[in-house]
Amino acid sequence: MSQLNKSLIGRPVIVAGWVEDIRDIGRLVFIVIRDTTGSAQAIARGENVAIAKELSRQSSVVVGGILKEGDARDFPFEISIQDISVQARASNSLPIDATGRISSSIDKRIDSRALDLRNPAVSAIFKIRALASSSIRENLTTEGYLEVNTPKIIGTASEGGANLFNFDYFKKKAYLAQSPQLYKEQLVVALDRVFEIGPYFRAEKSHTVRHLSEFISVDTEAAFVDYVYSMSNLEELVRKVVSVISDKFRNSVSTEKPILNSKHVEPITKITYKQCLDYLSNRGEKIEFGEDLTDSSLRVLGEKHNGFYFITDWPTNLKPFYIQEKNNNPELSESFDLQYGYLELASGGTRLHEKDHLLSRLEKKGLRPQDFAEHLKAFDWGIPPHAGWGLGFDRLIMTLTNSQNVREVVLFPRDVDRLVP
Amino acid sequence: MSQLNKSLIGRPVIVAGWVEDIRDIGRLVFIVIRDTTGSAQAIARGENVAIAKELSRQSSVVVGGILKEGDARDFPFEISIQDISVQARASNSLPIDATGRISSSIDKRIDSRALDLRNPAVSAIFKIRALASSSIRENLTTEGYLEVNTPKIIGTASEGGANLFNFDYFKKKAYLAQSPQLYKEQLVVALDRVFEIGPYFRAEKSHTVRHLSEFISVDTEAAFVDYVYSMSNLEELVRKVVSVISDKFRNSVSTEKPILNSKHVEPITKITYKQCLDYLSNRGEKIEFGEDLTDSSLRVLGEKHNGFYFITDWPTNLKPFYIQEKNNNPELSESFDLQYGYLELASGGTRLHEKDHLLSRLEKKGLRPQDFAEHLKAFDWGIPPHAGWGLGFDRLIMTLTNSQNVREVVLFPRDVDRLVP
Repeated sequence: MSQLNKSLIGRPVIVAGWVEDIRDIGRLVFIVIRDTTGSAQAIARGENVAIAKELSRQSSVVVGGILKEGDARDFPFEISIQDISVQARASNSLPIDATGRISSSIDKRIDSRALDLRNPAVSAIFKIRALASSSIRENLTTEGYLEVNTPKIIGTASEGGANLFNFDYFKKKAYLAQSPQLYKEQLVVALDRVFEIGPYFRAEKSHTVRHLSEFISVDTEAAFVDYVYSMSNLEELVRKVVSVISDKFRNSVSTEKPILNSKHVEPITKITYKQCLDYLSNRGEKIEFGEDLTDSSLRVLGEKHNGFYFITDWPTNLKPFYIQEKNNNPELSESFDLQYGYLELASGGTRLHEKDHLLSRLEKKGLRPQDFAEHLKAFDWGIPPHAGWGLGFDRLIMTLTNSQNVREVVLFPRDVDRLVP
Repeated sequence: MSQLNKSLIGRPVIVAGWVEDIRDIGRLVFIVIRDTTGSAQAIARGENVAIAKELSRQSSVVVGGILKEGDARDFPFEISIQDISVQARASNSLPIDATGRISSSIDKRIDSRALDLRNPAVSAIFKIRALASSSIRENLTTEGYLEVNTPKIIGTASEGGANLFNFDYFKKKAYLAQSPQLYKEQLVVALDRVFEIGPYFRAEKSHTVRHLSEFISVDTEAAFVDYVYSMSNLEELVRKVVSVISDKFRNSVSTEKPILNSKHVEPITKITYKQCLDYLSNRGEKIEFGEDLTDSSLRVLGEKHNGFYFITDWPTNLKPFYIQEKNNNPELSESFDLQYGYLELASGGTRLHEKDHLLSRLEKKGLRPQDFAEHLKAFDWGIPPHAGWGLGFDRLIMTLTNSQNVREVVLFPRDVDRLVP
């Protein structure tokens, strides 16, 4: 417990937290009290023994007593209880063991998420998450990006592609946004560099450890730059975030699994899509030019690269309509994905900024320009050349905490089977 | 333009931005170039005159030339053009005047929002917005609050009250969250203090200058505190945010309207609901105890208090089921609203944390405990006493920028009539 320190030894202290453990040895009762910062042992003697014997594990308590140097190996401090008050009594039968000593499935843990978070190895993940988001915000702001909020309720299922949730919006059909792509592009007309960190939604019927139907995305867009800038901006950001997390959490919190070291990200290898095909072909994974990399091929690549790496210069046909072709070869595009092993973390590229070019690409993709009327207006207003990326924030937290399932790093995940709690 | 300074006079510079103005006087063409940081005058001579004459207003350009001291009153610097390249040509007929000299209705401006943002008085609002959100995050983090993300897709229309948007979620009925209230309360079981800044949704058919169907809310919840702490924590936060905004923007950016001065918030008056009724009654606005304050009564109060003030100790029946009654008088509750004039900015209070108490209040409100089954589970896990508040972020920005319509401070507002852009 962070408020306890040597200078308080011999003096009265008050701590608030929950009862993690109770050991009743008759004339004495040992109680482990935990809060978000750590734990301390408290010892009930005399008249407090009866009260302590009645405590249930996980109850919220406020304990007053004299601070002493700890005898037990795990506890530098011990509180000799003078007063103990139960703020909220926990049930005697709890659905999971919040100390983590008896492990439960991720499903059972999410069913009782608030209780699960009393396990310090679990709450550490969400402390890392909060610090990662504040580090991203700070870095992007320093780089001149302005944080914006774009709407999550949209009027047209514009980007095509993934399935969208739809609903009745005052007698009109509306959709939940799958990304801020079109809005962030429009905003470079005037705001130069923008970013957004917010929730997005995809009605995909996936049953994997890396897909959710609601997820947090970090999105950036910048005027007067191309995908080379965009990629190095993302690389720099990832390096800084890893370094902040690693500095703060390496020795202070146990997450059960090792936290990424900043050595993992210096420098990030760049390989082209074509080089991936060559490598895969030598490993017996035959993929034709223009086909997407399969899950199994990404696992083969992930074994070789085993950390962060970029796959660049994707075939134009595999990328969305707004991605710019390469000047010297229109079959390839100015695009990149950031990978971590087999996991796709981010996607970015140079965007088309000329209206005629965009119109012809929409048509090539079989999309109807009239569905993009609101977006296309901005291309009459002198929209500058621009580039940007979208980063799956939850997936980044998976890499930072070495979690194998995205549900480990999301408080209340949403997927095809789960809508509660 | 912030990159231009006296030390560069006589030297070659390159600037990127858009053409705000063109003045063609025959042998010379004066061009005002603006970016997000300001503007500069560029002068085309000789062979560049022909190119300059062809420019359209609002086109994106990159201009290279020699920096000189400005002659014109409005421009400390002047660029003698050596090279001008058009990055994107704007249409000759634009829907609104992005300099703001010819004013347009808020509706027309939102129809062309990206262009509207080229007006520095408009983009200033969104710079203030970004700084306010980063200041809120920084202050809450310093106070020990952990930033969290709770789901926007929820399985039960739990809180009752305002209308929710609903939709088909893999053959189940789902709703868009109207607040993170129940989640943030559950999280104090383990995380002590949490906050969230995120989008929320209400299907209200309002046509007012202060309601949107999608809005950003700042929400906090803290363990082991009550509404007195919660109110002073909110007061302190508002004071700090106003001071940061006022320091940074008072002299540097024109928003057309005066920016709030931190004197407006020191200290914030607290009046009880009962005192409001007495005051209103003397002004001929008769409201019975237990009735909500009407729009017109809030305007009367707003004229008297004309800045930030708290209305405290609301009748229990006017507050949601989770608000704690006052010990000495259960007809009143430990609750508060933060007002700015007639505008309600925030609501908060001490929460019930005993399950039986909560169950009896749910029943009194005519709500079905089974609809809250997932939430009630947390009350078996030793949930500590807690309190918190929710603050309408968009409305706070209205007060900070002296905007009379919430649509002025939201990039792409959503209301009963508007779903685009």
